[in-house]
Amino acid sequence: MIRPATDEDWASIYPFFSSIVAAGETYAYPDGMSIDEARPWWMEAPPGRTVVAVDRDAIVGSAKMGPNRPGRGSHVATGSFMVDPRYHGRGVGRALCTDLIDWSERAGYRTIQFNAVVESNRAAVHLWQSLGFRILTTVPEAFDHRTDGLVGMHVMHLPLSGPASRGP
Amino acid sequence: MIRPATDEDWASIYPFFSSIVAAGETYAYPDGMSIDEARPWWMEAPPGRTVVAVDRDAIVGSAKMGPNRPGRGSHVATGSFMVDPRYHGRGVGRALCTDLIDWSERAGYRTIQFNAVVESNRAAVHLWQSLGFRILTTVPEAFDHRTDGLVGMHVMHLPLSGPASRGP
Repeated sequence: MIRPATDEDWASIYPFFSSIVAAGETYAYPDGMSIDEARPWWMEAPPGRTVVAVDRDAIVGSAKMGPNRPGRGSHVATGSFMVDPRYHGRGVGRALCTDLIDWSERAGYRTIQFNAVVESNRAAVHLWQSLGFRILTTVPEAFDHRTDGLVGMHVMHLPLSGPASRGP
Repeated sequence: MIRPATDEDWASIYPFFSSIVAAGETYAYPDGMSIDEARPWWMEAPPGRTVVAVDRDAIVGSAKMGPNRPGRGSHVATGSFMVDPRYHGRGVGRALCTDLIDWSERAGYRTIQFNAVVESNRAAVHLWQSLGFRILTTVPEAFDHRTDGLVGMHVMHLPLSGPASRGP
């Protein structure tokens, strides 16, 4: 089940947010942020949105989404995903990304762009591809992976079939 | 002449910054920002840096630069450029981009990435190419150009030959 995140949810998101950042394999966030420092990096205000994936009473993942750029770039959505490592392999990432796609279509975005998908994060790359995303390019050596060293980051892209482009 | 910007310079940068944003041809910034609202969008604090191009006593252009991403992406620099339209065609953009390249090498960055170069801004695209940048991809319809409608945005990239990669 995916629902919008509340302020109270941040205390449940931060533990896996911080462990994923510390693992150094998937995201370029500042290192070692406290729970208060990290909050604005993940908890989005409108027109953006942060959601949580809930399994029974546990928050098992989270996504943030919104315009990729302001102004004349604001018809392009983007998103980021964190799944609690204890809940990998259960479809949480797929559910979160499907929610991003549905929300972006409803909100009238024309495309979704991921700016920085670490190429060695193959499970995520394959998942986004299975949902229709295409790799536009791989920026060489753009991510300093904790164990693999410098690896590329994919720019990934999904055109949406929103109301404006649907036929009569 | 290129020099670091001071707080006092912002009053001289803002008029061409705001007219370039309002023209709607090159940058995705929020529309209609006041001088105080726009300031944090252009005036960078360390580890970033904002510079001005000075011709006699006039500020004729400005650039901002810094890490493209925090943390494990912070070895990649990025930059943005604004040239007062009254001073186009005089090499100001070239001088500013050369300064970015020199600064990025000195500061130890490994590459420079431009994330969002509007493809119809051909003078700028050719200028960056003449300085060694390569187009990695063009994200389709990513910019809502005021007169041309939806146009692509290039991701452009320059490897640097910094101290770490120089031979003996």
